[in-house]
Amino acid sequence: MKTKSTIKEVAQEAGVSIATVSYVLNGKKTISADTCARVMAAIDKLSYVPNMSASNLGGNDSLLIGVLVPQTEPGSTLMFQNGFYGEILGAIEYEARINGYHLLISGTDPEESYLDLARKRNLDGIIAIGIYPGSFYSEASKRNIPLVLVDSYCPGQHHHNVRIDDIYGSYLATKYLIEKGHRQIAFFCGQLRDDGVMKKRLLGYKQALDAYATPFCDSLVFKGQIDCESGLALAEVFIRKKTAATAVLAAADILAVGAVKGFADAGWNVPKDISVMGFDDLEIAQYVPPGLTTVKQQIALKGKKAVELLVRSIREPGLTKREEVLPVSIVERGSVREIKDGDA
Amino acid sequence: MKTKSTIKEVAQEAGVSIATVSYVLNGKKTISADTCARVMAAIDKLSYVPNMSASNLGGNDSLLIGVLVPQTEPGSTLMFQNGFYGEILGAIEYEARINGYHLLISGTDPEESYLDLARKRNLDGIIAIGIYPGSFYSEASKRNIPLVLVDSYCPGQHHHNVRIDDIYGSYLATKYLIEKGHRQIAFFCGQLRDDGVMKKRLLGYKQALDAYATPFCDSLVFKGQIDCESGLALAEVFIRKKTAATAVLAAADILAVGAVKGFADAGWNVPKDISVMGFDDLEIAQYVPPGLTTVKQQIALKGKKAVELLVRSIREPGLTKREEVLPVSIVERGSVREIKDGDA
Repeated sequence: MKTKSTIKEVAQEAGVSIATVSYVLNGKKTISADTCARVMAAIDKLSYVPNMSASNLGGNDSLLIGVLVPQTEPGSTLMFQNGFYGEILGAIEYEARINGYHLLISGTDPEESYLDLARKRNLDGIIAIGIYPGSFYSEASKRNIPLVLVDSYCPGQHHHNVRIDDIYGSYLATKYLIEKGHRQIAFFCGQLRDDGVMKKRLLGYKQALDAYATPFCDSLVFKGQIDCESGLALAEVFIRKKTAATAVLAAADILAVGAVKGFADAGWNVPKDISVMGFDDLEIAQYVPPGLTTVKQQIALKGKKAVELLVRSIREPGLTKREEVLPVSIVERGSVREIKDGDA
Repeated sequence: MKTKSTIKEVAQEAGVSIATVSYVLNGKKTISADTCARVMAAIDKLSYVPNMSASNLGGNDSLLIGVLVPQTEPGSTLMFQNGFYGEILGAIEYEARINGYHLLISGTDPEESYLDLARKRNLDGIIAIGIYPGSFYSEASKRNIPLVLVDSYCPGQHHHNVRIDDIYGSYLATKYLIEKGHRQIAFFCGQLRDDGVMKKRLLGYKQALDAYATPFCDSLVFKGQIDCESGLALAEVFIRKKTAATAVLAAADILAVGAVKGFADAGWNVPKDISVMGFDDLEIAQYVPPGLTTVKQQIALKGKKAVELLVRSIREPGLTKREEVLPVSIVERGSVREIKDGDA
């Protein structure tokens, strides 16, 4: 193990008292420029490490925010192969930094509780992206740690929440496809949980079909995981089952990207042979030929709002629980074509 | 600000001495199961937060590793729009976790030094991905903080290093294209720095051309940034200049992905009208039609090796500087076609 210098050694090196070193570190007393320079030189020379949580920060605050990212399976790696998490993490890090916070990134092992980790690390707050076991939410309420949920429909109003209106986004997308002349629209999605976004997106799809007197058909719903591989596999199933649909609405862009590749592998051209629409507007959506028509959510804004809300709730412990619902819109690119009567 | 419980309150609640609470937290003395249970119950009830760096860890260790990710520009967001960083971060987090470490993620503001941040946060070590100003490397040596560089050709053997043989990877790719009959091969890359991978990849390209008696032509080198947008823009320049090349070697997959889209936008089919080869084998390389032929580097292994080396160098301060060079290979997909004599 490396040995670290002590505050006493710094004081000796600078020829001042330990209290003076502490004053310099904390900035809580006026110290002469000369003394200050001597102390800083001693700190540099000895590579002294002031303990951030104990000394030069206000009280007990660690100025650390934990960001909880879903894991591919319990105890396994974080889901960074979905560009969504990298994009939102970039925005969270930036916003946290300009507010004086750093991020702690950690998954958990199956037998470990993230809230125990948060306690051990003295986290000032947590941003939890996605959905977690019910005990996580109730335990977080009990422990009273500032928490902002992103993309969660956890019941009750016990936590701050930042999300989009997933039902409406999916409604818009389905309406868009119907207005382009599509009547048989398949829906590719991940696993459906009551508190997750996938179930809401399925609901929006159903509501739009209903609003436009287009019958819902269970065999047009294809469930997989939320990754490219699954999108590709679902396209293969779609083809093998000779599915009578002219369009696919994928409930996540990475599902759509996989689906486009799956169709291409079978010699199908998007959008000539099949229209594909995504959801999220990840950066990659612009670059996968022919360009993915998709539902745009403002991922960077979501990250920014989550940090703003968390910082506020750290500073105002009694803050009434808030829900920020960010806007969505359709981005038209090349992956959906218009179908004229009798064209399909 | 939230108020946190003190060790004294825990001791009062449990009806034991402060020292006993400390023993329970540190596990350094044998305490009866009954006392231990009382203390743990009091900790739970009061939501007491033991300070991880001060109490239940060994000595001064924070068990925190800083991961340094390049920023899009000084003071701006981290480069997570390149899937490479998400993929390697996932691997680093997993390997760090099973070794008992958590990750601190932070960019820096232009006037801030990452090494000052590392000192304030008492980081046990740093993994720096990519290249940084020269002062970062010299200062890190001076401060003697365990540091592992990933994808850096910083001169001298002052730091541990994990990378691939970028010259050889690019040599292999160019050789592959030449063997497929291509004689005019354009090279798309980011900015060239002596200590970065781009310059080495350009060198490998030149060496292969030389080895196969194919003349190098400066006008076939297209420089941009390492992102999809730049790849698309370089393809547009390539077309506008009526470049006489049958293939593009892009020195990063995201450049290749952008280029494929740029060619598609102009009505060019990959690989019929132009072959495109990438470098990295990001997950997306499999899914962009027609599938990107590329140089595979084992990104997850790179992250794992970086953590292994860092943990070893934290535990063995005198460890001789090591360089781990990981293997590369060609992955054939659909984006490169064979050219027969007189075919181009």
